[in-house]
Amino acid sequence: MWNVQKIQPIGNSSGVKEACGVFGIYERSGIQVANDIFFGLCALQHRGQEACGIAISDTEGTRDNMTFYKNLGLVTEVFDHRRLDTLSGNLGIGHVRYSTTGDNTRENAQPLVLNYIKGTMALAHNGNLLNVDELRQELAHDGAIFHTTTDSELIAYLIARARVKTKSIETAVALTAEKLKGGYALLIKSPRKLIAMRDPLGLKPLCLGKRGNAWLVASESCAFEAVGAQFVRDIKPGEILTITSDEIRSDTSCCRQTHAKCVFEYIYFARLDSMIDGVHVYDARIRAGELLAKDSPADADIVAGVPDSGLAAARGYAKAASLPFEMIFYKNSYVGRTFIKPNQEDRSAGVRMKLSVLKPVVSGKRIVLVDDSIVRGTTISGLIRMLKEAGAKEVHVRISAPPFLFPCYYGTDVPSNNQLIASSHSTEEIRAMIGADSLAYMKLEHLSQMSGQTDLCMACFNGTYPV
Amino acid sequence: MWNVQKIQPIGNSSGVKEACGVFGIYERSGIQVANDIFFGLCALQHRGQEACGIAISDTEGTRDNMTFYKNLGLVTEVFDHRRLDTLSGNLGIGHVRYSTTGDNTRENAQPLVLNYIKGTMALAHNGNLLNVDELRQELAHDGAIFHTTTDSELIAYLIARARVKTKSIETAVALTAEKLKGGYALLIKSPRKLIAMRDPLGLKPLCLGKRGNAWLVASESCAFEAVGAQFVRDIKPGEILTITSDEIRSDTSCCRQTHAKCVFEYIYFARLDSMIDGVHVYDARIRAGELLAKDSPADADIVAGVPDSGLAAARGYAKAASLPFEMIFYKNSYVGRTFIKPNQEDRSAGVRMKLSVLKPVVSGKRIVLVDDSIVRGTTISGLIRMLKEAGAKEVHVRISAPPFLFPCYYGTDVPSNNQLIASSHSTEEIRAMIGADSLAYMKLEHLSQMSGQTDLCMACFNGTYPV
Amino acid sequence: MWNVQKIQPIGNSSGVKEACGVFGIYERSGIQVANDIFFGLCALQHRGQEACGIAISDTEGTRDNMTFYKNLGLVTEVFDHRRLDTLSGNLGIGHVRYSTTGDNTRENAQPLVLNYIKGTMALAHNGNLLNVDELRQELAHDGAIFHTTTDSELIAYLIARARVKTKSIETAVALTAEKLKGGYALLIKSPRKLIAMRDPLGLKPLCLGKRGNAWLVASESCAFEAVGAQFVRDIKPGEILTITSDEIRSDTSCCRQTHAKCVFEYIYFARLDSMIDGVHVYDARIRAGELLAKDSPADADIVAGVPDSGLAAARGYAKAASLPFEMIFYKNSYVGRTFIKPNQEDRSAGVRMKLSVLKPVVSGKRIVLVDDSIVRGTTISGLIRMLKEAGAKEVHVRISAPPFLFPCYYGTDVPSNNQLIASSHSTEEIRAMIGADSLAYMKLEHLSQMSGQTDLCMACFNGTYPV
Amino acid sequence: MWNVQKIQPIGNSSGVKEACGVFGIYERSGIQVANDIFFGLCALQHRGQEACGIAISDTEGTRDNMTFYKNLGLVTEVFDHRRLDTLSGNLGIGHVRYSTTGDNTRENAQPLVLNYIKGTMALAHNGNLLNVDELRQELAHDGAIFHTTTDSELIAYLIARARVKTKSIETAVALTAEKLKGGYALLIKSPRKLIAMRDPLGLKPLCLGKRGNAWLVASESCAFEAVGAQFVRDIKPGEILTITSDEIRSDTSCCRQTHAKCVFEYIYFARLDSMIDGVHVYDARIRAGELLAKDSPADADIVAGVPDSGLAAARGYAKAASLPFEMIFYKNSYVGRTFIKPNQEDRSAGVRMKLSVLKPVVSGKRIVLVDDSIVRGTTISGLIRMLKEAGAKEVHVRISAPPFLFPCYYGTDVPSNNQLIASSHSTEEIRAMIGADSLAYMKLEHLSQMSGQTDLCMACFNGTYPV
Repeated sequence: MWNVQKIQPIGNSSGVKEACGVFGIYERSGIQVANDIFFGLCALQHRGQEACGIAISDTEGTRDNMTFYKNLGLVTEVFDHRRLDTLSGNLGIGHVRYSTTGDNTRENAQPLVLNYIKGTMALAHNGNLLNVDELRQELAHDGAIFHTTTDSELIAYLIARARVKTKSIETAVALTAEKLKGGYALLIKSPRKLIAMRDPLGLKPLCLGKRGNAWLVASESCAFEAVGAQFVRDIKPGEILTITSDEIRSDTSCCRQTHAKCVFEYIYFARLDSMIDGVHVYDARIRAGELLAKDSPADADIVAGVPDSGLAAARGYAKAASLPFEMIFYKNSYVGRTFIKPNQEDRSAGVRMKLSVLKPVVSGKRIVLVDDSIVRGTTISGLIRMLKEAGAKEVHVRISAPPFLFPCYYGTDVPSNNQLIASSHSTEEIRAMIGADSLAYMKLEHLSQMSGQTDLCMACFNGTYPV
Repeated sequence: MWNVQKIQPIGNSSGVKEACGVFGIYERSGIQVANDIFFGLCALQHRGQEACGIAISDTEGTRDNMTFYKNLGLVTEVFDHRRLDTLSGNLGIGHVRYSTTGDNTRENAQPLVLNYIKGTMALAHNGNLLNVDELRQELAHDGAIFHTTTDSELIAYLIARARVKTKSIETAVALTAEKLKGGYALLIKSPRKLIAMRDPLGLKPLCLGKRGNAWLVASESCAFEAVGAQFVRDIKPGEILTITSDEIRSDTSCCRQTHAKCVFEYIYFARLDSMIDGVHVYDARIRAGELLAKDSPADADIVAGVPDSGLAAARGYAKAASLPFEMIFYKNSYVGRTFIKPNQEDRSAGVRMKLSVLKPVVSGKRIVLVDDSIVRGTTISGLIRMLKEAGAKEVHVRISAPPFLFPCYYGTDVPSNNQLIASSHSTEEIRAMIGADSLAYMKLEHLSQMSGQTDLCMACFNGTYPV
Repeated sequence: MWNVQKIQPIGNSSGVKEACGVFGIYERSGIQVANDIFFGLCALQHRGQEACGIAISDTEGTRDNMTFYKNLGLVTEVFDHRRLDTLSGNLGIGHVRYSTTGDNTRENAQPLVLNYIKGTMALAHNGNLLNVDELRQELAHDGAIFHTTTDSELIAYLIARARVKTKSIETAVALTAEKLKGGYALLIKSPRKLIAMRDPLGLKPLCLGKRGNAWLVASESCAFEAVGAQFVRDIKPGEILTITSDEIRSDTSCCRQTHAKCVFEYIYFARLDSMIDGVHVYDARIRAGELLAKDSPADADIVAGVPDSGLAAARGYAKAASLPFEMIFYKNSYVGRTFIKPNQEDRSAGVRMKLSVLKPVVSGKRIVLVDDSIVRGTTISGLIRMLKEAGAKEVHVRISAPPFLFPCYYGTDVPSNNQLIASSHSTEEIRAMIGADSLAYMKLEHLSQMSGQTDLCMACFNGTYPV
Repeated sequence: MWNVQKIQPIGNSSGVKEACGVFGIYERSGIQVANDIFFGLCALQHRGQEACGIAISDTEGTRDNMTFYKNLGLVTEVFDHRRLDTLSGNLGIGHVRYSTTGDNTRENAQPLVLNYIKGTMALAHNGNLLNVDELRQELAHDGAIFHTTTDSELIAYLIARARVKTKSIETAVALTAEKLKGGYALLIKSPRKLIAMRDPLGLKPLCLGKRGNAWLVASESCAFEAVGAQFVRDIKPGEILTITSDEIRSDTSCCRQTHAKCVFEYIYFARLDSMIDGVHVYDARIRAGELLAKDSPADADIVAGVPDSGLAAARGYAKAASLPFEMIFYKNSYVGRTFIKPNQEDRSAGVRMKLSVLKPVVSGKRIVLVDDSIVRGTTISGLIRMLKEAGAKEVHVRISAPPFLFPCYYGTDVPSNNQLIASSHSTEEIRAMIGADSLAYMKLEHLSQMSGQTDLCMACFNGTYPV
């Protein structure tokens, strides 16, 4: 099924943001991998809930025996036993796609699967190119036709064109990389090879894993755990890895000295149990809480986090502040993605459906409440109201990141300025609006210490864009 | 949703047959046309039941405001009120796709919708190209990527490439036509134009209609009736029609002297109430029956047709033979497309579900039973058995076409040789196998008289293929 | 799933009309019967398209091993291979339900399946009781609860109550029959028996069939053909048949002298290939046409019927009038049950989607057009307009039944008076409204001759209701 | 839709267990309540995920204007905006149903909706009757028919019968209550009244809430929070509450001195933020952990709970043991109810999909791991293995309840004996089987202190059943 969709003309790609997860596996022993990709995509589901897909083939069969399936929905909605049984092979890639507002009916599920001069190719991609318009115009002037408005289709075109003149697909990928500006983690499946590339700035994460005779590549290391594989190492910014039936080759010719790793992965996007560029996300978030506690202490009785985004930082804050770390909310795990809107009269119904207060813990208490961000402020103000109704004496809000102030052009879906409360209000104004007794954000200068990285992109916080 | 699908490599297009229906309308007064396309496609449903789609835009709005929807299923299954309401505009095209065996899950619904240098383009196509492999190889060597295995994508590519160097899309279509070999009826929708082209041999039908300020194009004239429009004329073999907001231009530069119109349209494919190349299909089938009666009379009491394919020829036979024309079967109109297979013990259950005998008419009678073809012989033998059980004394089978003996390369889905009973058995052997008292086919030399055409393609009957 | 539904209070059953089909089979050899019931229900689909169901059990297994499935939709929509495979047993009944306006979401699919003192019971029922309100009040005053508003639930209650005091279920059925007023054909499946009963007036048809070791019961004989069984005889009005593993018993204690068989079955409701009370429906309809031709001749060139309801009577008319019988419409068999409403501007679009005119046959002709009824007149006037547009010189409408003038209380869904054009207009007025050149109905006094029955209910035509 | 289902004969009810949630609201001001019931059922979803339903009516309209909808699935799956909009009224009840093994296709969604002598009645019920067989036999011998195998249908029958002889429905409920043995919380909606009853032993919880002019009744107080209502009080064991347009009446004539409140509600079943019989569930679980810490200390570095069931008791344990309370697992909230089974080779894949270890917290640590139960031991042994792989030095398992050893006859779905690891193995054997370094359960004698109740049913732990 193709949903009803507006076809956008070339040159109007500015609104298209992508922030997704990719997973690839090559089982050299010939073992079937559809279930592994399923489990791996489940582990990466937090990176994208709009759509998902799997493309797979058998390296021992005839060339070009690829099968694939993709659709809108969660991994467990799109794939079941019967569907997975139709996907046969030992080499495959998968993708989960993020739902950017208003775009969740677009025909842009991945992997992108196509034929070109050398047979079939599948491509899964996390990221955003900056020079999309130039590339598309250039291709169009050469007679290209486009079925989608994704960056991925442009990349596929460039690879196909480069492949005409080169000896191997990995060389074509390297030639293509020279033309791409922006952040990306890219998986390409040819009939006999799995190729992985990370953008030279290292904006998007990508790592390598191993399990017996299988090599794996994923956006985050948590996907390896899910399939019983071991994390081997991060793929270097600019590195192109080619996995074949008998070797794994690294091409570092596109690597550069300076990087700009996305700090947002540590703060929000990556999963708590992942390791990114040598740093465990859990450790980074604990440190965020500790730094916050030192900079912005509060005279309080207990520390708690907004489930689940604020829990680790709250734990760190509690530790550094020597205060008890408490659960103060019950989370209704059955209300995942409901579309019943609350009555006008009770705007907090959406929050109430999802979270409720554990009164015995909060009654009469002064509380430090930690979260990783304030976007519009509606959720946090609802929670503060619920806490006060339940008898909390004070609620001190601590945010484990600086305020977002600048748009992201590299594929992270930060809300636009007019939706961000921080872009038009002072911290004190926001505090008053959400009904907190105090409010503090993490300081910009702590981001490096928090993430354990020196070569970060912090553009959404400070407006300093790499390139 | 994309169904699980095998991606076929370039160069293996031999199994892909298409026989579809197209419909286009340009309402210059600005009236919405989604409902018209829906009704038109319903009228063309007999040309393809696998999939269908509509692409539409508003010529008064911004350029490139196209919306579309396509899916597997009948027109009335894919589109309902709500879906049609999302398709807004006064210029649109639609397509119904034929179900070739084993292929009905393929991602090849049309219209094909894409972006190219001049914005958006939608393309709907009935037919089959002979030089697909050459064209695809040529494009691939130039770096093209293919999302589908359809001819339509190749045509779109050629148009896009030609468009880079030409002033108008219709010129690009003309340049493209020079490269295409085979039979096709093609509709192209650009933001402001509706372009229709029929292959120079005239293998596929295409005609022009009018309703008030609207111009229409369709595979068959029956689609005009369905929307209250009038048939204007057949589009000439090789003609390119360009319909814009203020004119309708005919480019006949690709037209040739010799044609090869598909005789199969008159025998089987076209609808009984359509007019094709100046001849009414009903008249052709009546004539088929008359010719059959003269050549192969039978000493019988009544004449009847197999519903619905044999009814008109039976009427003609009855007239010429001066015998009563009777209904002898009741057709269960609720059992359209069921998938319950009959028990091994009773192989005729499939036929029995669909048709049953009206005993009072056939009891004690000698019957001439007319149909348009015998493929495997299972249906006709089931019917003959049912008639005999109901008391018919004799059943004389008359087929209103010669036996199929040769494959079609132009997009009509004639079953492959090993499925055709006629390719390996004599008429007498077939008669014995199906249990008929006599059996006769129409003579090859009558095809011209039957169809009222001299420039026919009769390759499936005589093996003489047009170049 | 239960659809959203209004629960109607007791005593308000007047609007509930039923006109359905029933099918039962007992394979004493132990052969599985789910597929037979499926095929039988497909053959009875014309009697009801709203909902259907099957209840089945194995007479050799433990008692009370019944399984069942029912849902809204056509038989081929509700049941597929997988579903049928879950329905195991050699004794079963099935039901198709008629869609009365506005009622098609009601929770009243059959068979009704329940537990009572003797274990499980399934019940399928075609007809309508006149004393529903009295029966329901009586039961309610005794503490009964009702899950549905169907007559069937009342019958089941009465049987269960009678069964407490009687030795066999068939005796309980006989006791229950004494309390029922109205027309009904009833099938009851107990763990080891199949019981069939027809109302003493014979208002609803029911007949007995046989196939090897299996006995079958069905609303119409066409269902026997569909499963390769033979028609044995009609079940007598008032007869109760009990089929067990070793005998078939007839209880005629409820039979009466006077009957009131529904004439509507011959005119419209029953299938053309069925035999009802010794008369073949096809013969009756041919006779209807013949009688019509004698009473209401027309100076015409050809005779044609409205597909499919008027075809047989048209054939009879043509025969008696010695005029050619012609097909003049093409019927689009893909447009079964669509819900796209035509534009206001073109009210005949609904008809045009379904039927189109074969111009070569009608052009310049004076036509007799036969149908079995005129309800609101919209269809026939649309057809007449289409015929005139196609060049017909005159259209003489002949209706093979008298005008409906009175409501039916026995389960046939005749539209209410204010929808019937005949209830408020003279024949001449109707002729003018529909645009016919002449109009005639069958005479009331011919109904007996047409149907070959003397003991008919013709209440809908003459207002004389049987008690 | 009715699913394929086996009809069970009367007298075989032993396998039917129910453990559900009920919610009722009467908005005397006339405000619509469908959304409130939706939110309330969402809050009670943990009590049953198999099926749910809502029945509603307008007390100001005509009598018997009830509408309802029920289906298999979660509340957010069954109801959406459009569905809720079809459910109109100010008085309604809802139900969520628990999925007992192998039973989730049974036609037993609630509320049960029916007609009886006084019009319509809807009934929602949590619990299990002990004397089902006697009641059903008694009714069957009086001629009753049963559509379901639920206790609820029996209760409805008894009420309908009592109502014939009594003046009000609440009196009929009181008469019915005298016949019921077992645990139940019952809501009955008549056209103008909402009646709530709790079983005399108090086995099932039920409480009263208020919001403006509305009275509410729910299984747990958390449902009141979800709709912005206030908890008023628990409904007393044996109390019948009747809520009408102008009063709320309490009938305590069925109340007894001795109660047997289900201790399992505090341990496992009720939501952490609910208050049951005056005790907050959170407090009870914290106390469970504290008691466990005192009885079964461990020489450890950190304390953690299995999400989400062991978290509160782990917090209590940590407090009492003065050890840090840590999160050690990441829970994948997207993998709710998936049906992909893990490979044979990796049996812990199911657990791994749902939970993963936060390595930095557990590496090198001695861990106390708290959960509320061990059923088969597969989950806990998987978690212990994952912790050891992540570097945990020791894992000391503490269970915040005694081992289940006896079946529950009152509607709580405790697995049968042969599935319970504790019924056939000593604690030391279980410890070895799950790979823990130590294992301890809560002592039976602490249950009263934990729950703050003296009149408990602890039959599943000690085999002493209330009569």
